[in-house]
Amino acid sequence: MQTDELASRIRNGERRALARAITLVESGRADHRVQARALLDALTATPGQALRLGLSGTPGVGKSTFIESFGILLTGMGHKVAVLAVDPSSARSGGSILGDKTRMERLSRDPAAFIRPSPSQSALGGVARRTREAVSLCEAAGFDIVLIETVGVGQSETMVAEMTDLFILLMAPAGGDELQGVKRGIMEMADLILVNKADGDLKPAAERTRADYAGALRLLRRRPQDPEGFPKAMCVSALEEAGLERAWDEMQQLALWRREQGHFDTRRAEQARYWFGEEVRRGLLARLERDAAARARMAALGDQVARGDLSVARATSEMLETLGITS
Amino acid sequence: MQTDELASRIRNGERRALARAITLVESGRADHRVQARALLDALTATPGQALRLGLSGTPGVGKSTFIESFGILLTGMGHKVAVLAVDPSSARSGGSILGDKTRMERLSRDPAAFIRPSPSQSALGGVARRTREAVSLCEAAGFDIVLIETVGVGQSETMVAEMTDLFILLMAPAGGDELQGVKRGIMEMADLILVNKADGDLKPAAERTRADYAGALRLLRRRPQDPEGFPKAMCVSALEEAGLERAWDEMQQLALWRREQGHFDTRRAEQARYWFGEEVRRGLLARLERDAAARARMAALGDQVARGDLSVARATSEMLETLGITS
Repeated sequence: MQTDELASRIRNGERRALARAITLVESGRADHRVQARALLDALTATPGQALRLGLSGTPGVGKSTFIESFGILLTGMGHKVAVLAVDPSSARSGGSILGDKTRMERLSRDPAAFIRPSPSQSALGGVARRTREAVSLCEAAGFDIVLIETVGVGQSETMVAEMTDLFILLMAPAGGDELQGVKRGIMEMADLILVNKADGDLKPAAERTRADYAGALRLLRRRPQDPEGFPKAMCVSALEEAGLERAWDEMQQLALWRREQGHFDTRRAEQARYWFGEEVRRGLLARLERDAAARARMAALGDQVARGDLSVARATSEMLETLGITS
Repeated sequence: MQTDELASRIRNGERRALARAITLVESGRADHRVQARALLDALTATPGQALRLGLSGTPGVGKSTFIESFGILLTGMGHKVAVLAVDPSSARSGGSILGDKTRMERLSRDPAAFIRPSPSQSALGGVARRTREAVSLCEAAGFDIVLIETVGVGQSETMVAEMTDLFILLMAPAGGDELQGVKRGIMEMADLILVNKADGDLKPAAERTRADYAGALRLLRRRPQDPEGFPKAMCVSALEEAGLERAWDEMQQLALWRREQGHFDTRRAEQARYWFGEEVRRGLLARLERDAAARARMAALGDQVARGDLSVARATSEMLETLGITS
């Protein structure tokens, strides 16, 4: 299919065209990359402005159930919801979150929803690019809410926070002392902490956990991009579909405030600039992998360094000279 | 001073020459860099084989007191001890660990010891290079034990672990539930956990903390580079100079076992290869900073990306083309 035709089908919201385009941006083949760039260029002219939500939570907090219930709430309100996943573990295990769509049976059958599992790519950098580009494609296809799911691992959370407008942390009810297990850096990224499973026997524990997180959030310095009272901790029950509407209200309120204050667009611009820098750095470093002569020279110099025959400083300067760079 | 003369003075163990050479490797000036490389080359021919010890611990665990007592124990045994510091915070605060030599009054006056504070350089990459090169210089000057101190911040600890033979974690006595605050990654790096301040009223708490860490260490998978029983947790009192000799025995035993099993040299070779790769990558990326035309083009494309006029993919491919790289 020609790029123009694919682009126009995506703009018409054709799901198969969207799925195909995402497969294209996921590909590492050089000719696919050229096509992908052309497609993204063609679609840049008609940018969507979806609200991009990052969602993180360790396995067991009920992320799939939450996405199912929350997604259905949103489509029920008339929204079009795309769900993408970033799973750093899938590269190693071959597994993938969201892979088991049966865990989101209702949402995956919902015509207003689009669910795409995490690709099993080796480098986090590759996953980042694919996910960013998939977000653009989903926006061009008319989805007005894009939810990016990730598991609770530091690096992938930072990446998702760098490509979303709001970052939501899903937690399970816990004993008070487990609070310490949450890394400060992740707390600082969160715009909203949702304590899930606030139902049945776990309700009191969920409320205590919520209060603990609320206390911890109050200790953090107020960020310029937050109105009074944010970041916030709330209880939800994905199972009983309780508290989800309130959570959505809070997200909207926060996004609206940031739009009005100019933080929303500023952040998007910063993110785009950041990813541009990352891609250029990746491209520069890729020379070391792609060029067979460079690879061979690197290996030979590395052997000499490992044997102690050559200092790291000297080997580096010889290698950079080989690459045409004088230091 | 000519490189040859400086090299020969360092080999003679002249402290002023060593200090001057470290200042040279710390410098960012291009001509200094050329001299530093020549000096390191000249000294590669006579490599020292010091035992390189990494030491980490958050402020307040008594690191200065420990280094003072431990250093004096070692020089008393006839060793020559160099102490270097890696302080990621010094770049920001302008302060520096080890800066206050009065906290190590006895050791700093010891003729068999050499103490060098952390430089206040901006990039962790720069600090890594300077520290690695300073280690080589100290070895060439005849120091047979090089201790590299760092504060308890993830990234700098990983760096120090990547340039040392043994990694020691200094901890303070704590309540049992504080154990959770120690990052698993740091526990996994440690060869020896020393619980300091096992003196006076804190003695029982120190022993409990030690037992907690010992239990936690047993839960970690045994690493191939460890003999039975390692990594280990022990109590020491730097203040009362108690347990230090036993700790040193354990370090020697571990180093000896690794030497005999071949892990010691393998690890050194791996580390050298790793740093070579890091330096080449740094050198490649430095083009973006150093070349004024590249910087300007990068900024201009970044602006277009930030405004949404250009996709990240397109801007990246244009920038890489500017740099003579076709992706």
